[in-house]
Amino acid sequence: MRVLCTLTLSVFSVICSSLKVKASNPPNIIIMLMDDMGWGDLGVFGQPSKETPNLDAMAAQGMLLPNFYTANPLCSPSRAALLTGRLPVRNGFYTTNGHARNAYTPQEIVGGISKDEILLPQLLKKRGYISKIVGKWHLGHRPQYLPLRNGFDQWFGAPNCHFGPYNSSVRPNIPVYNNTEMVGRYYEEFKINKKTGESNLTQIYLQEAFDFILEQHASQQPFFLYWAPDATHAPVYASKSFLGQSQRGRYGDAVMELDDSIGRILSLLRSLHIENDTFVFFTSDNGAAVMSGPNESGSNGPFLCGKETTFEGGMREPAIVWWPGHIKEGSVSYELASVMDLYPTSLALAGISPPDDRTLDGLDLTPVLLKPSHTLQISRPIFFYRGNELMAVRLGQYKAHYWTWSNSWEEFKAGINFCPGQEVPGVTTHNQTEHTMQPLIFHLGRDPGEKFPLSVLSNEYQDALGRISSVVEQHQKSLVPAAPQLNMCDLAVMNWAPEGCEKLGKCLKAPKSEPWKCDWPH
Amino acid sequence: MRVLCTLTLSVFSVICSSLKVKASNPPNIIIMLMDDMGWGDLGVFGQPSKETPNLDAMAAQGMLLPNFYTANPLCSPSRAALLTGRLPVRNGFYTTNGHARNAYTPQEIVGGISKDEILLPQLLKKRGYISKIVGKWHLGHRPQYLPLRNGFDQWFGAPNCHFGPYNSSVRPNIPVYNNTEMVGRYYEEFKINKKTGESNLTQIYLQEAFDFILEQHASQQPFFLYWAPDATHAPVYASKSFLGQSQRGRYGDAVMELDDSIGRILSLLRSLHIENDTFVFFTSDNGAAVMSGPNESGSNGPFLCGKETTFEGGMREPAIVWWPGHIKEGSVSYELASVMDLYPTSLALAGISPPDDRTLDGLDLTPVLLKPSHTLQISRPIFFYRGNELMAVRLGQYKAHYWTWSNSWEEFKAGINFCPGQEVPGVTTHNQTEHTMQPLIFHLGRDPGEKFPLSVLSNEYQDALGRISSVVEQHQKSLVPAAPQLNMCDLAVMNWAPEGCEKLGKCLKAPKSEPWKCDWPH
Repeated sequence: MRVLCTLTLSVFSVICSSLKVKASNPPNIIIMLMDDMGWGDLGVFGQPSKETPNLDAMAAQGMLLPNFYTANPLCSPSRAALLTGRLPVRNGFYTTNGHARNAYTPQEIVGGISKDEILLPQLLKKRGYISKIVGKWHLGHRPQYLPLRNGFDQWFGAPNCHFGPYNSSVRPNIPVYNNTEMVGRYYEEFKINKKTGESNLTQIYLQEAFDFILEQHASQQPFFLYWAPDATHAPVYASKSFLGQSQRGRYGDAVMELDDSIGRILSLLRSLHIENDTFVFFTSDNGAAVMSGPNESGSNGPFLCGKETTFEGGMREPAIVWWPGHIKEGSVSYELASVMDLYPTSLALAGISPPDDRTLDGLDLTPVLLKPSHTLQISRPIFFYRGNELMAVRLGQYKAHYWTWSNSWEEFKAGINFCPGQEVPGVTTHNQTEHTMQPLIFHLGRDPGEKFPLSVLSNEYQDALGRISSVVEQHQKSLVPAAPQLNMCDLAVMNWAPEGCEKLGKCLKAPKSEPWKCDWPH
Repeated sequence: MRVLCTLTLSVFSVICSSLKVKASNPPNIIIMLMDDMGWGDLGVFGQPSKETPNLDAMAAQGMLLPNFYTANPLCSPSRAALLTGRLPVRNGFYTTNGHARNAYTPQEIVGGISKDEILLPQLLKKRGYISKIVGKWHLGHRPQYLPLRNGFDQWFGAPNCHFGPYNSSVRPNIPVYNNTEMVGRYYEEFKINKKTGESNLTQIYLQEAFDFILEQHASQQPFFLYWAPDATHAPVYASKSFLGQSQRGRYGDAVMELDDSIGRILSLLRSLHIENDTFVFFTSDNGAAVMSGPNESGSNGPFLCGKETTFEGGMREPAIVWWPGHIKEGSVSYELASVMDLYPTSLALAGISPPDDRTLDGLDLTPVLLKPSHTLQISRPIFFYRGNELMAVRLGQYKAHYWTWSNSWEEFKAGINFCPGQEVPGVTTHNQTEHTMQPLIFHLGRDPGEKFPLSVLSNEYQDALGRISSVVEQHQKSLVPAAPQLNMCDLAVMNWAPEGCEKLGKCLKAPKSEPWKCDWPH
């Protein structure tokens, strides 16, 4: 516990001593990461249908973080940031193929998580944690990039999105792995009925979580469970017993099943009497994919646009922390926080020093979580990137946009709309629009929907700009971008013959390698 | 209790018998009506700043009604509907000066609530209720229209909106009444600092509520308190100790003061041990006035547009019912409900038969409130009017728009925008656009923001249209519009010399009567 205490000794001596008692017995850690679920999809965050009783109860028993952000408005970079505690521009999960483009890891991607990165489970091992990921990985699907080569002890799930079904000769379906070997493929052994939306995958992922918790409980070893189901990512799916149950259509059915599953996981912890020994964090990887329309996407509540954009709808995430006996019931922290904070926070909980050879963007949230303060902390910035371009910065209640872009005119005119029903002149731009000389600044307290830029002539604008500019200057001066990992694509690297395919007779023949610079339209 | 039991005997015999016990002692009734507060302004409805702990607690101790509607997107008709249980087109609170225009009661208005209407407090008298209105009346300011001539026993507040300050020779400031006599005027004896936003009016209205509750408690008479503060209507105001406290600016300060006041009123009921004997209903008169910009207006959450429009942002209202010991803690009812339901519901609580000589649009909600069901009731329509034009209808999850209009091009081009940042092609129209032959239909469960009209070619559209059409036909066949009360204006009727002005030396000289047809731009 030395590190945590050194960092926070003056202010949080009470917490230090309470954690010190537990030092020999660090808590289990569960991170529940939803896929494309929006801030506004939870009853507790104002979804009008109020269909998330378990998440709402989790908030009532824990802490709500209404100012919690992802590190990127797209899945792969967001997930890489969670597991490294670093911005994608630092951990390499970005592209330089175009200006300010969002890149991810479809199965044509050649790259993956860099070997130079230290992932959270690698460090948790030092204190004897057993780590499992259940669900979507998305940090690269070639062998060297897979979870068991990057710190996890166990995995059940898939390396890429569950798009498909694909024609095996032209494009393989995504494999589902059990640890190091594939056990089938989506649409083949793991059915998803795209017409009805039926799939029992969430139930499988729930059972995997149950089994892991029970095993670790029996073996008395601390565990890290990274539970990352993908039912709310298009094509949205739910089990038969949930289909048609929601007032919100198929997307709502998926949310109800996830909510139910989360309720069951928390109940299991209580049944095992380990709720006081298990830190649980719920969030989502990016904003709701509103471009997918009402049947296949969620809600970003009052926020602007969604997934793929650096407006609040793309970056602000639902977040609930639950740790009975440690975190005050029904509390709210207004602290600006980030998915990257889960890395140093988890390390602090485990009593492990963070790596000292690299910059972390995440902060240890334990002081805030364990001693909630309702005063707003204004000192910590949140950076909003696309690729290696700093698009926007939030500091306190102010958010400055240096670049705006929703999506291109070409896409927009073809019917792809990242901000359906929303149009804020000069803000939801369809050209990449530079504002670096005179950023657009919003006060997110008065105007969470980013509809009313402050007048550049106001004192408020000038004050905010002054403070933000100095933070940005400091950030950019010290920033050393990593080599971009998401530039090259190649059909030959697709999931033709994942490890284990021979046993199943499911190996496919890869085409000749012909790498190209990936095209990232967003 | 005979009436209620007769009406509901077969299904709700348990409730009947429990109410029967109380028949000799009907509950006190408090209706808290906010002014221009939006659905999205409460923490429990997803306001990101989460600054309404008392309202959130009220919901946790009572029932939330996420599908609750006003009867008109503007103050006066909404309030007339609340107190008569009838649509404005039936109670006369509308205009025929233009097509589908919203009318209200500025001080030039000649008309007011018709003598043919029976207001709620008039009926509550039958069971010995003492009724008080605190705050804004808005049902006409000429002597015959004032509260004490229309069933209320007491009044402290003002007849019109707190616009101003006005020049006394051209336009008088709005008077504040104590019962039948004015005791001063806004901006004169009752200060509102438009520059700083400071005013202690909410504290005065709170004290009036306190005094009334304490008096009635002492006298052991059942009471009806209609608490209608106007701090969240522009110009927005708050007391000194609340100014600057909110993360949301001045509007948020006003909300925090109202939230605090509501907490105090509920605490008083508990202190007096009459919480089990007092039915409290919280709602707002219409959606947030988003055209007023971020400093002076609230939030309609995920809903489209706001005040003055018949989109969800104008008509869907926050609603909480609180009656410890009778209403299940933390419950949610998805029932479609209306502010007009408060009339028959209050009568049912008091054990009074509703008038049998007229059509009521409100329904008795007691079965739903006392026995919440989480299944959606699809049989009851909600009608959305502007003037005497049926603009839209909700039935179950479907809403059909027969006419759309946000606001006129003239206004829009002059910078008045009823849907800032929102633009749904063909929906947020700036001309009055008719869709009666082929209504725009939305599924509000999947698409609460009214962004994605159903395809007219789909079976879902045809099914929904069929069901809605038959309901509309039935409604229109039986509808007998009242004579419109809001057509004529006259400078001579303004608040020049309200009763009591002589004692205060505050009488002003009225100009000669020159009536004209009021111009309603919205």
